[in-house]
Amino acid sequence: MSYSPYSLSFDFFGLRRIMKFKTIEWKGDHVRLLDQRKLPQEIRYLECRDAPAVAKAIRNMAIRGAPAIGVAVAMGIALAARKIRSNRPEIFWKKMEKVCHLMGETRPTAVNLFWAIERMKRALNQLHSEDVEGLKSKLEREALRIYREDLKINHKIGENGKILIQDGDRVLTHCNAGGLATAGYGTALGVLRAAWAEGKRFHVYVDETRPLLQGARLTAWELVQEKIPATVITDNMAGWLMEKGKINLVLVGADRIARNGDTANKIGTYGLAVLANWHQIPFYVAAPTSTFDPNLSSGNDIPIEERAGEEVTHMGGRRVTPGGVKVFNPAFDVTPHSLIEAIITEKGILRKPFIKSLRKLKTK
Amino acid sequence: MSYSPYSLSFDFFGLRRIMKFKTIEWKGDHVRLLDQRKLPQEIRYLECRDAPAVAKAIRNMAIRGAPAIGVAVAMGIALAARKIRSNRPEIFWKKMEKVCHLMGETRPTAVNLFWAIERMKRALNQLHSEDVEGLKSKLEREALRIYREDLKINHKIGENGKILIQDGDRVLTHCNAGGLATAGYGTALGVLRAAWAEGKRFHVYVDETRPLLQGARLTAWELVQEKIPATVITDNMAGWLMEKGKINLVLVGADRIARNGDTANKIGTYGLAVLANWHQIPFYVAAPTSTFDPNLSSGNDIPIEERAGEEVTHMGGRRVTPGGVKVFNPAFDVTPHSLIEAIITEKGILRKPFIKSLRKLKTK
Repeated sequence: MSYSPYSLSFDFFGLRRIMKFKTIEWKGDHVRLLDQRKLPQEIRYLECRDAPAVAKAIRNMAIRGAPAIGVAVAMGIALAARKIRSNRPEIFWKKMEKVCHLMGETRPTAVNLFWAIERMKRALNQLHSEDVEGLKSKLEREALRIYREDLKINHKIGENGKILIQDGDRVLTHCNAGGLATAGYGTALGVLRAAWAEGKRFHVYVDETRPLLQGARLTAWELVQEKIPATVITDNMAGWLMEKGKINLVLVGADRIARNGDTANKIGTYGLAVLANWHQIPFYVAAPTSTFDPNLSSGNDIPIEERAGEEVTHMGGRRVTPGGVKVFNPAFDVTPHSLIEAIITEKGILRKPFIKSLRKLKTK
Repeated sequence: MSYSPYSLSFDFFGLRRIMKFKTIEWKGDHVRLLDQRKLPQEIRYLECRDAPAVAKAIRNMAIRGAPAIGVAVAMGIALAARKIRSNRPEIFWKKMEKVCHLMGETRPTAVNLFWAIERMKRALNQLHSEDVEGLKSKLEREALRIYREDLKINHKIGENGKILIQDGDRVLTHCNAGGLATAGYGTALGVLRAAWAEGKRFHVYVDETRPLLQGARLTAWELVQEKIPATVITDNMAGWLMEKGKINLVLVGADRIARNGDTANKIGTYGLAVLANWHQIPFYVAAPTSTFDPNLSSGNDIPIEERAGEEVTHMGGRRVTPGGVKVFNPAFDVTPHSLIEAIITEKGILRKPFIKSLRKLKTK
């Protein structure tokens, strides 16, 4: 399945423009990223010319979303390899070790990052070559493979999941699990795109997703481009909408899923899952199988990133809170498997008990 | 019990200042309000020189919080009376009718507003005087009585409720039910002030309370002044904090309470109450008895104000959402009585069933 960049007509300050975007692109001597921090107000691309620049873009969330981070990490490693001037294998291997470590330190929760590093390492190890140029090409091919695979996987998740969306549905989503969070198309938004393409008509409620507003800024932007009707709400409105019967399913992405199905995702997801359960609304997770962490038996062991307090205290560069007050800013939470109705993957829809359905998946 | 304005030491942009503030003051020929829209960054007072100016300040939320709105409405009516130049009773009564109508149209959910209008009308009707100057004085005295009573009531709520706070507690609050939401001292924050004054030591988590950030801006500001340790969180973090055992009680204010105890309060309160119930954390409401609406048997009939979408789409004057996306912005929600552990009033702590405890209160 091939993937073309979004064609979009975008009305900004009354100015009608046609534009195309790609979340991330391999440009040979650099990696080009759509800077998501200023979207949708500014369409700005970052050109990362070395691995530290890619690592910085991941850390400061110019690029975010577990699958997109995986792709960025792979491209960052391929870029680092390319920039090594020495032809001596021992220097090459040492520098590769270093860049993998650098990438592994960027963000702790999304497991796709570590999965991508492992894939790049495996690609290297398979070769065991003394030919440094050969190794560089090998890494570049592997990064591009990860990118193309992610696109295919997203489309497959969409195809698998669209059966869960019905005409007239009112879907609540949180954060951004869209084309911007992946190589393209999206996981949760991929499901919505596939259902929409099939002619199903529904309405999407989008949690704005404080503190960084990935819902209000990114998900809303993607849905407007697709002409899928969408309503942005503040995060604290979700419960009331459920109580008023305005939501009939919740659909989110994931940053890391333990063997039992416990799912780490953007902060606020856990609260939504409790609220959905309370109101007997099904709660779905959409994610590639690379988001499963085979090393963790439960979500208790998923490391939760805490980010800078300024994300909460400041808005648009201006402080809103008074001096002297503390801030707590966990970027993720963990939703227990018991609150998840199903997990939509590229290999099919997993039902409870996830520990069994996941095991079955592996033997397929 | 007398009340003195807050003495506070306030560190702003590194500049240490000592200041005093009053939420609202009767100045004879005008009403002086602390403009809460710019707090805590700017300390600006509004001088409302006629009733439409007071009505505007209520509508645009320069002053907000159910009890404070009640006081503002009373002062606005007294001010309108004072500004009437005619000594002809029929003109005076007609203009009074008009100003009461104007005040009644400002905001629909907080019942204290209508309660204050009724009190002012009753004060007028008791007199049945032809002496217009006498009526003006009567209204002024009644407005000042409502103001002073609210201060007393808040202190009484604090005294009654402080028993519910224990040393070491971690209290979650939402929006601002503080001195800024009342004539002073506060309802939910009044309880915390009274407990703190008694020497109890605890920590307060403050929901930032989107869209207008009354938690991050106003509650945090009040708590910093009182030197009560406080941590601001985004609204979507509350569930995760509860799951992690970091919250052991929730305490909020109210905008209108039906006869059965169903409580309208700032949007997000309902979701918190569900989350508290899920985690077996007691959920308390603190409010004066003027917040009870004797006309409503349940919360289903409480009108919920919808405010402008710009409150959600814009931050600090800048648009954050893309064009073409809808917004839903209900300002309040209704928490069913079943989720409320107790309601703290100036007349005592009401326990379930509220319909009974409320009836008993009236016969006291």
